[in-house]
Amino acid sequence: MSSEVNSACCHDEQPDRQTVQPHKRQLLQRLKRVEGQVRGIASMIESDRYCVDVLTQIQAARAALDAVSLQILQDHLRGCVQQAVQHGEGDQAIEEITTLLAKWKG
Amino acid sequence: MSSEVNSACCHDEQPDRQTVQPHKRQLLQRLKRVEGQVRGIASMIESDRYCVDVLTQIQAARAALDAVSLQILQDHLRGCVQQAVQHGEGDQAIEEITTLLAKWKG
Amino acid sequence: MSSEVNSACCHDEQPDRQTVQPHKRQLLQRLKRVEGQVRGIASMIESDRYCVDVLTQIQAARAALDAVSLQILQDHLRGCVQQAVQHGEGDQAIEEITTLLAKWKG
Amino acid sequence: MSSEVNSACCHDEQPDRQTVQPHKRQLLQRLKRVEGQVRGIASMIESDRYCVDVLTQIQAARAALDAVSLQILQDHLRGCVQQAVQHGEGDQAIEEITTLLAKWKG
Repeated sequence: MSSEVNSACCHDEQPDRQTVQPHKRQLLQRLKRVEGQVRGIASMIESDRYCVDVLTQIQAARAALDAVSLQILQDHLRGCVQQAVQHGEGDQAIEEITTLLAKWKG
Repeated sequence: MSSEVNSACCHDEQPDRQTVQPHKRQLLQRLKRVEGQVRGIASMIESDRYCVDVLTQIQAARAALDAVSLQILQDHLRGCVQQAVQHGEGDQAIEEITTLLAKWKG
Repeated sequence: MSSEVNSACCHDEQPDRQTVQPHKRQLLQRLKRVEGQVRGIASMIESDRYCVDVLTQIQAARAALDAVSLQILQDHLRGCVQQAVQHGEGDQAIEEITTLLAKWKG
Repeated sequence: MSSEVNSACCHDEQPDRQTVQPHKRQLLQRLKRVEGQVRGIASMIESDRYCVDVLTQIQAARAALDAVSLQILQDHLRGCVQQAVQHGEGDQAIEEITTLLAKWKG
C-alpha cells in the first residue's frame, strides 16, 4: 500500500495521469463501509423491511458517497489542479472540473 | 423469493410494517450492480487512477442509488401511502414522506 | 385575498385544477423575499462583489426556493393527492408527483 | 458599465476582493429573468394555479439560478483561483471553494 502524501499528484507526462490519492487509506475504508451499506440495503429489501426505513438507509449511503467524492475533489483541486496551473495547463484542468460540477448540480 | 406484486403493501397491523417491494427482484439486481460499482471505485483508487475518472464513477454509482430510491418511493406512494389514505391514516404517511424529501433537497 | 385553509384543494371538475394554497400568504411573503434576494445578487454583481460572496447568496436564494417548493409539495400531498386517492384517482396524482421528483433528483 | 473581460479578476490587495465578472452582462440578464420567474410563481399562487404547475415553475427558476452559479464558479476557478495559485495563495482559495461545494452537495 502506498504511503499517504499531502496532495494528489498527477503525473501529466503519463497518458493515464496516475494519481495517488493523499487520503487513500481513509477513502478505501469509507468505500468499504459504503459497500457494506449497499449490501445492507439489499438485505433490508430481501427481508421486506418498511420502504421509508430502506429509503433512509439509501440516503445514508448516498451521503457517504458524497463525502468520498468531496474529499477526492478537494484533494484534486489542492493537488492536480494547482500543479496544472503552475505548469500553465490550468484552463484544461478547470474545464474538466466544471464539466463534472455541472453534472453534480443536475 | 416472493412473487412480484403490483404495489407496495404495508401491513400496518404489524409493528414493523413489513413491505414486499413490488419491484423486489429488479431492485436487488440494481443494488448488486451498485455494490459492484462501489468495489470498482475502490479498486480504481487502489490502482491510483486519475481523480476525475474516479469522481465520474462515483457519480454513476450515486445516480444508480437515486434510481433505486426513486423506484421505491414511487411504489411506496402507489402502495403504502394510498392504502394509508384509504384507511384514514394519510396524514401520518405523508408527514413521513415530506420529512424524507426535506432531507433529499438538502 | 383568500382565507387560509388546512390543505390544498383541487377542484378536479375544473379543467385547470385551480388550487388555493393553504399557506398562500406565507408563500407569497417568502417569494417576495426570494425576489429581493435575486435582485440583491444582481446588485452584488453590478458592484463587482467577490465571486464567493455572490455564490453564497445564490445558495441562500436557492435554499429559500427549495423551502417554498417543499411547503407546496407537502400541502399538495396532504390535500390534492389525498383527495385524489379518496376519489379513486390516486395513481394519476402519484404519477405526476414521481415525475416531478425524478427531475428534482436529477 | 464595465467592459467584459476574459476571466474573473480578484484584486487581492483590496480587503473586499472586488471582482469584475467576465460574463457580467449575461449574468445580469439571466438574473433579471430569474426575478421575473419568481414574480411569475407568486402570481401563479395568487391566482390559485395547480400545485404541480407551480412546482414545475419553481424547478425552472432553481435551474436558472444553478446555471448562474455554475457560470460564476467556472469563471472564479479560471480567474481568481488560478491567480491565487500563481501568487502562492492557492490553498486558501481552494479551501473556500470546497467549503462552498460541500454545501452544494447538501
